[in-house]
Amino acid sequence: MTQEDYLHKAFLLSTKANINDIRPNPYVGAIIVNENNNIIGEGFHKILGGPHAEVIAIKDALLKQSNLSKCTLYVTLEPCSHFGKTPPCTNLILAHNIKKVVIGSLDPNPKVSGAAILREKGVEVVELFQSEIQELNKCFILNQMARRPFFQLKVAATLNGKIADRNGNSKWLSNSLSRQYVHEQLRHNVDGILTTAKTVIKDNAKLNIRHANEADKELSVVVIDPRLDLLKPENKDLEIFYPRVQSKIYLVTPLVNSITNPELQNYPIEILKMPFNNGKVDISQLSQILLEIGFYQILIEAGGKLNSSFLEADCVDELYLFITPKIINDNKAIGIFENEENQTLEEGKKMKLKQVIQLEEDVLMIYKKLN
Amino acid sequence: MTQEDYLHKAFLLSTKANINDIRPNPYVGAIIVNENNNIIGEGFHKILGGPHAEVIAIKDALLKQSNLSKCTLYVTLEPCSHFGKTPPCTNLILAHNIKKVVIGSLDPNPKVSGAAILREKGVEVVELFQSEIQELNKCFILNQMARRPFFQLKVAATLNGKIADRNGNSKWLSNSLSRQYVHEQLRHNVDGILTTAKTVIKDNAKLNIRHANEADKELSVVVIDPRLDLLKPENKDLEIFYPRVQSKIYLVTPLVNSITNPELQNYPIEILKMPFNNGKVDISQLSQILLEIGFYQILIEAGGKLNSSFLEADCVDELYLFITPKIINDNKAIGIFENEENQTLEEGKKMKLKQVIQLEEDVLMIYKKLN
Repeated sequence: MTQEDYLHKAFLLSTKANINDIRPNPYVGAIIVNENNNIIGEGFHKILGGPHAEVIAIKDALLKQSNLSKCTLYVTLEPCSHFGKTPPCTNLILAHNIKKVVIGSLDPNPKVSGAAILREKGVEVVELFQSEIQELNKCFILNQMARRPFFQLKVAATLNGKIADRNGNSKWLSNSLSRQYVHEQLRHNVDGILTTAKTVIKDNAKLNIRHANEADKELSVVVIDPRLDLLKPENKDLEIFYPRVQSKIYLVTPLVNSITNPELQNYPIEILKMPFNNGKVDISQLSQILLEIGFYQILIEAGGKLNSSFLEADCVDELYLFITPKIINDNKAIGIFENEENQTLEEGKKMKLKQVIQLEEDVLMIYKKLN
Repeated sequence: MTQEDYLHKAFLLSTKANINDIRPNPYVGAIIVNENNNIIGEGFHKILGGPHAEVIAIKDALLKQSNLSKCTLYVTLEPCSHFGKTPPCTNLILAHNIKKVVIGSLDPNPKVSGAAILREKGVEVVELFQSEIQELNKCFILNQMARRPFFQLKVAATLNGKIADRNGNSKWLSNSLSRQYVHEQLRHNVDGILTTAKTVIKDNAKLNIRHANEADKELSVVVIDPRLDLLKPENKDLEIFYPRVQSKIYLVTPLVNSITNPELQNYPIEILKMPFNNGKVDISQLSQILLEIGFYQILIEAGGKLNSSFLEADCVDELYLFITPKIINDNKAIGIFENEENQTLEEGKKMKLKQVIQLEEDVLMIYKKLN
């Protein structure tokens, strides 16, 4: 087996974790290979606050042989070098005189300089960066680098790029397979949905997670609601106000207001007061606050205007575009991105096509942000 | 081998023809199977005016055995029963006492009633319709049924459905693989391109066929040019006026006008005078005339308004939609279909997704008209 093969094995180990158990931590897998090229230790990071992958792998290896000084550690992420929830992994590596460490990605956290510390102490460090590792930890990396949530934008559109007719009707553009994908592959993996009061009211959207053969799951929702329309008495019966135990509705508004609707007094609603400019929320500030609250990955399901604002703020990290075999032939029908300003072809954004999935007659195209 | 297998073999035979050699005739293949289940005759329609597939197959079979009375003829299209360029095939089938005929599709031409005539004379006729045969002869069938050309609409658009920015700039939205597909798979198979003077002038499009390793090929172009802009002296150097030997430019206009530009006196241009209504050509009349001229299959490469007119006239038989990984975030950028009128989601057209092809980072989605 080559170094790449061992690292790939560590990568596969890392994917055994459930993202909801480790978030905001990354997926990490580790393997110890001895001088006879035998794998004698394996580990992966399984739960937030629990031991790191390297620690588990080293403990596992020590059950087989007590001297690890001729071993190589393969780990998908640069070992930590600071006291966080656990002591630094670099200490443990040095304590066992491990001679060589192969790492699959650098830790984007500037507090982590494990590679440099190990080298200083005479350990051979090989950096063998793998795109599959970067991809798996895309959310963690973005959170660390940009200090904001990883935003995935979901859009269902006609083949000519319309998400609703000029009256706002959009039910149902996409087919049942596409909607199932949204619930099981997208909503299932995020900390919440970001939308607007207009979308919530117009579509009477429940915005929870519905699986084919499982009970419905709650999901927090962040609603851009400048006038606090959701608190109006006439909106009290909206589907979004289903009984919540583990989730909340966050209303983003420039207003200072308490919850005036007595029927919602005991409902888990939180008001996020934010600066607005020309009716648009400050995305940079909102993003920071959302990360602090604990939104590491957010699915945007909204209208063309909010989509456009996030696009122009360079905050569409991934786009999930479901194209249905329909056409609304009307210039005033609502587009995927709605923007009144002039933009030339040269000024337009480019994205990177990641994947194309055919879902019966719908086509899902997955794009990611160009760096 | 089952009946379906023999018919599929006849289908494969039929595809050996070159569409440019047989048009406007359909692809037809035929096989003779004797009483011992041996294939003793094969034939396909190879050239317009030449023998039909059944004739070739029967002649081929007669080289092996003189008595065909216990044989079965498998033919992809209902045998002809009238004198056209060749005598009726039904006569030949009856003359050789072939006991059974399996046909893969009916002839849409009402003058052809071969199946009924054979049955009358005691031949067992089995109709085993195959979608692959319908698909291969889609253009022939549409020509016969609707008495108009088969229209394929080609569009290159951003992922949000824009074909140009508000200034009309569209070069180059799609990548080189997509453009190669247009030349080799689309333009190569049609009798001409339909476009507008605006597109020809704005893009300075040559609209010929450019292959990777072959010389350029001419292609006739039908230009909707109500004011005969292409004849204006300032447009004489447009790429579309390349030297033509086998092709023509047709200008569609409501004006009665002779060619006034002396530089184009000897150029193969023909004026098609047509009624216009609110600046839009009558698509029904234009279609009839184009079929009479000999346009059986036409590729539309135009702007959003012409695309919209053909869509609303139910004349988009196939749509080739190339989606590029770009966004023009501007409501006034030009859409795939441009239409000022209100259209609700319910009123919108549906199409049928045929195929999805990834061309590097472009995605080609092929749709066909719903019947």
